[in-house]
Amino acid sequence: MTSKSPVLVDLKFDPKVVATALKTAFPDRGSINLADPAHRDRDLTAVDYALLWKPAPDLFRRAPNLKLIFSGGAGVDSLIGLDGLPDVPMVRFVDRSLTVRMSEWVVLQCLMHLRDVVGHIQNQRKRVWGKQVAPEAREVTVGMMGLGVLAQDAAAKLQAIGFNVIGWSRSAKQIKGMQTFDAGALDAFLGRTDILVGLLPLTPETTGIYNASLFAKLRRNGPLGALGQPVFINAGRGKSQVQADITAAIENGVLGGASLDVFEVEPLPADDPLWAHENVIITPHDAAVSEEYALMRHVEEQIVRFERGEPLQFLVDRRRGY
Amino acid sequence: MTSKSPVLVDLKFDPKVVATALKTAFPDRGSINLADPAHRDRDLTAVDYALLWKPAPDLFRRAPNLKLIFSGGAGVDSLIGLDGLPDVPMVRFVDRSLTVRMSEWVVLQCLMHLRDVVGHIQNQRKRVWGKQVAPEAREVTVGMMGLGVLAQDAAAKLQAIGFNVIGWSRSAKQIKGMQTFDAGALDAFLGRTDILVGLLPLTPETTGIYNASLFAKLRRNGPLGALGQPVFINAGRGKSQVQADITAAIENGVLGGASLDVFEVEPLPADDPLWAHENVIITPHDAAVSEEYALMRHVEEQIVRFERGEPLQFLVDRRRGY
Repeated sequence: MTSKSPVLVDLKFDPKVVATALKTAFPDRGSINLADPAHRDRDLTAVDYALLWKPAPDLFRRAPNLKLIFSGGAGVDSLIGLDGLPDVPMVRFVDRSLTVRMSEWVVLQCLMHLRDVVGHIQNQRKRVWGKQVAPEAREVTVGMMGLGVLAQDAAAKLQAIGFNVIGWSRSAKQIKGMQTFDAGALDAFLGRTDILVGLLPLTPETTGIYNASLFAKLRRNGPLGALGQPVFINAGRGKSQVQADITAAIENGVLGGASLDVFEVEPLPADDPLWAHENVIITPHDAAVSEEYALMRHVEEQIVRFERGEPLQFLVDRRRGY
Repeated sequence: MTSKSPVLVDLKFDPKVVATALKTAFPDRGSINLADPAHRDRDLTAVDYALLWKPAPDLFRRAPNLKLIFSGGAGVDSLIGLDGLPDVPMVRFVDRSLTVRMSEWVVLQCLMHLRDVVGHIQNQRKRVWGKQVAPEAREVTVGMMGLGVLAQDAAAKLQAIGFNVIGWSRSAKQIKGMQTFDAGALDAFLGRTDILVGLLPLTPETTGIYNASLFAKLRRNGPLGALGQPVFINAGRGKSQVQADITAAIENGVLGGASLDVFEVEPLPADDPLWAHENVIITPHDAAVSEEYALMRHVEEQIVRFERGEPLQFLVDRRRGY
């Protein structure tokens, strides 16, 4: 029986939650949690596997022989571009629970804008009985930007509720029951979209993609709300949005509302003007929390596949950046 | 070619909307809209069909030869018990759009409580970045009281989102993929329910059924919110709820939250204490608005069936009261 390489863990999540999950994770190989001061000067040169989220700057220097890197999240933008990142396979965290939670949040936000929850809450505060006739979901087109695992699950659930859903991705994708658009057809896609849902990975191409020029191309005078203006929902990455443009679009009526779970800087600074807009729903990057036990199980499963010589799942394509 | 009997209409909805819908409805038989002063003294003794919602008290005296009565809504509690109501078939309004809109509202309310939208809005107002880890939908059991067309559609959509859904009806119903309970098993049903969704018709048995004693039997210390207390959602009829008991249950923590679309008295009086509770979501009986064009089409279809001698759909069982 050969001794199995422990998993190096450097996750800037809630340290207590990570430590608790690690107590029972990786029973046959163990782990080295860098958050534990006991490992401050530990020799990491023999470590094969690392599970990382915003790792320490010297991590790749200290652990120069990694064979496989796991991201603690669905994205890898916290890893790509890091100094010393070795050229080994990288695996994203794609998890049933993460996917389901994200879809819950996306469906919730779309329904809140469809049914003008904010307007109802304002009426309630004034004790006003203000009956509204909202459009039916099928009169409203949700445009998904990004058609990965998360977006496809959310799209199917939005369709189950009745929304008309269309999708956009850089390279064309065929998805049953959904009209899709590719890079060259972005304007046509935007012109048919009432609620834009962003679930794009962060890459050089998607940095700042949600900006004033894009918002201006969304369908105007559509079925949503009193003004018929479109809504922007972002559950992807904060750096894909130009936040000053969102604030301006809300203030000048180009957007009728927004729901944001991600921000250029997190936590969102207390003096940011977005907080004050009631028709901007702000959630603190908790749309889909990574569940630590599920994350450890996923890493364990992929290591088993790797050691058996089976193909890895959720492999990152570094050229594309996700 | 015999002359066809026009449809008598007495709908206490928005008079302009009704008048507009009637312009194009019933092209081959016409209608008599009692809201039009021209018909104040019209002889109605030859009228066969009436479409009614809260009709005038003298209506059945003026139209004593009705063959068929249509309710303007999904319920018939505005008709049953009226003086002079003749013993002829009564048809409820069951409509795709009404059903779909109700399901949108039910899913929205369940997700709002699952994800603590109220807590997030309070944090936003204070500019607080307060990350929450909500339970996943499948950890939460939604108990539907009432298993009619509306409830079954809502249940299927809640299941699509991931909620665990159970159902209760007076007499046992078999529904695929859902555990159901009947009258004798009410306590067992309530003891497993985290979010109670009321979609019962109003009958003598269901009047005041949602009261303090029922709320106390819901599952306590469950997965919802900081306190783990259950939630009550009513989209059926206001007189099924004891409103003072809802207020008390919210104030003493027996209920963690509520969503109410219907009330004992509508509009909800401005001095009602429910308005002030932020964890009670109040909507002004607009969860599922009857769409007048769809209503007229439905009446037309059923009259055609009736005149062809085909069985009517959505017939009311007067003994049960719905």
